[in-house]
Amino acid sequence: MTRTQQRGVNLGNWLVLEKWMAPGLFEGTTAEDETELCRQLDETVRRERFRLHRDEFVTERDFVYLAARGVDLVRLPVPYFVFGGHDPYVGCIDYVDLAFGWARKHGIAVLLDLHTVPDSQNGYDNGGMCGVCKWHLDPVKVELALDVLERLAARYGSHPSLWGIEVVNEPISRAMWELVDVPRRFTPADPAYAAGSEPVPSDFLRDYYREAYTRIRALAPETTVVFHDGFRIDEWAGFLDRPEFTNVVVDTHLYLMEYALHHGLGELDDYVGYVRDVFAPTVREVSQHVPVMVGEWSLDTTSPAPHALPPDERQRYFRRMADVQLDAWRPAVAWTYWSYKMTIDTPASDVWDFGKALDLGFLPDEALR
Amino acid sequence: MTRTQQRGVNLGNWLVLEKWMAPGLFEGTTAEDETELCRQLDETVRRERFRLHRDEFVTERDFVYLAARGVDLVRLPVPYFVFGGHDPYVGCIDYVDLAFGWARKHGIAVLLDLHTVPDSQNGYDNGGMCGVCKWHLDPVKVELALDVLERLAARYGSHPSLWGIEVVNEPISRAMWELVDVPRRFTPADPAYAAGSEPVPSDFLRDYYREAYTRIRALAPETTVVFHDGFRIDEWAGFLDRPEFTNVVVDTHLYLMEYALHHGLGELDDYVGYVRDVFAPTVREVSQHVPVMVGEWSLDTTSPAPHALPPDERQRYFRRMADVQLDAWRPAVAWTYWSYKMTIDTPASDVWDFGKALDLGFLPDEALR
Repeated sequence: MTRTQQRGVNLGNWLVLEKWMAPGLFEGTTAEDETELCRQLDETVRRERFRLHRDEFVTERDFVYLAARGVDLVRLPVPYFVFGGHDPYVGCIDYVDLAFGWARKHGIAVLLDLHTVPDSQNGYDNGGMCGVCKWHLDPVKVELALDVLERLAARYGSHPSLWGIEVVNEPISRAMWELVDVPRRFTPADPAYAAGSEPVPSDFLRDYYREAYTRIRALAPETTVVFHDGFRIDEWAGFLDRPEFTNVVVDTHLYLMEYALHHGLGELDDYVGYVRDVFAPTVREVSQHVPVMVGEWSLDTTSPAPHALPPDERQRYFRRMADVQLDAWRPAVAWTYWSYKMTIDTPASDVWDFGKALDLGFLPDEALR
Repeated sequence: MTRTQQRGVNLGNWLVLEKWMAPGLFEGTTAEDETELCRQLDETVRRERFRLHRDEFVTERDFVYLAARGVDLVRLPVPYFVFGGHDPYVGCIDYVDLAFGWARKHGIAVLLDLHTVPDSQNGYDNGGMCGVCKWHLDPVKVELALDVLERLAARYGSHPSLWGIEVVNEPISRAMWELVDVPRRFTPADPAYAAGSEPVPSDFLRDYYREAYTRIRALAPETTVVFHDGFRIDEWAGFLDRPEFTNVVVDTHLYLMEYALHHGLGELDDYVGYVRDVFAPTVREVSQHVPVMVGEWSLDTTSPAPHALPPDERQRYFRRMADVQLDAWRPAVAWTYWSYKMTIDTPASDVWDFGKALDLGFLPDEALR
């Protein structure tokens, strides 16, 4: 392969759960997030459920499939309890080891993505604690995240398949906190515990990013260090392009649901226009200062309209969304689709599931050539 | 598609377990078969383990994948306890319903295969009770199998995706019983219970096949009724081609391990010769009397030699095995590979796993065009 852009998928919902992607894993509980799930399940069921899911959801055959389709990068979300020792959570480092072995064997690079931190960095379900966002307020918890990054860097820093380490996923901005209305949309299991939650300030984030960079760089001199834009993509030129940072990438997540959050549902042309007028210039302009990756995106416009179309028209609708987005990502050094697979079979899962989206012809095969 | 031969895969190890295909499902037990597994697991773990496995091992995305690759038939092994009511086994009819829904949506036909019966028809691990083969000796258990066939015919007989119903998988012959040396190779969990086990006689089998045919035909006038050859392929011309049978198929399982059982390990040319000299004439000649399907086959020669070859030579080795077998199956009305997927990643799983075998280029894409 002579292309310079790395292209691939997130292995979402494997080692960090999201209820909407696999509700069967939450059966018998009222949990909306992995923290509450682990609290409500007794130890026997918890261990059984996590082991079975992790054993089956991603195996070597998935890496064979991805390599055959032309994928050369997987972004691997891992929780802060990846190394174990945080009861009632179930550690999962053995599965990260397996993933690296499969990746090496099949020529795929791995971006390790610290997807959760204690008390959460965004209050989303995928941060592990709905409605809670207090991590940055407790230096002990910040140190814990840094320690996990160091242990990941020490363990995988010289692995030939390591592409990079992302220091924290989606630390939320004030604007996004308010736009999404996190406290209302992601109801906390324990409202008293959620008290004091707030978005992650940019000052904090710059300090954390600098410290994370220094610690990873000491242990893994060659790896790419990836920083999520924290939903404030305009703030990183002038910081990450300083000489103190080498081999860094800023990760931005560009979802079409952003259109709906601002404007409500739209027609296909509205989404296409939004990609061209908002997403494309963002990627192009920031790339002139700092290498950019689009670490999460999908074809879902959030509109139910396309799912009511006849199959071939539905396919054309999503193929057009694919083409315009792939074109917009051209200046990026990498993109990774969200997500590789789902266990639900709602119409929306056809567009969130990379395998389905490819096999249904929504994503063109050429996207990966 | 204008081809007349149906081509596809077995959904093995989904609703009927085989330890070698997914040893993680047997963790914490000494069980070698599904019966002993169900006995050794307490109810909570048993239900959890079966649910998680069944929820994740095959989902709609697999049907999307299979359809995209050109598969138009899946053979679906089901246990005799598919409808539930046989404690400690866990019923699974909901998953059969799901499979039919996915099959219809994605244009794939389904062959329902009664893969196990009480007290087993072969003593294999995949019959559910290692070393036991006494089903045919107990009329109550024979009636139970017939009743399950009737319930399957009643439930799916008019489903547009039903291709056929296979009345029992691999009822073992005396020759195969002795060749495999079942009592020694498949040690029973309870030797006293296994006492009296013996191969299934042809007289019994003809009576059972006639009765199964009559009962299915009454409920599902259009469906194909499939009869396994019971490892005695020469006995069915002169019986299944009688006027009393319409729309029937004889299923033969042609595995290269047969070569090793007769001759020990061989070179690639030996296996190729065996397919040309033994398998191909069998399929060709029987097809002149009764429609034949090759319901199970794989690329595994049982020789470890190819796995030590460099990747491209290894690929050529198995591609040659694929080409010669696909050519031999030409007169058959259908073939289904064993099996769609595995959760292990030994070298042999590369050839037993249809997805891997396709994506590694062992099976040619053209096999399914």
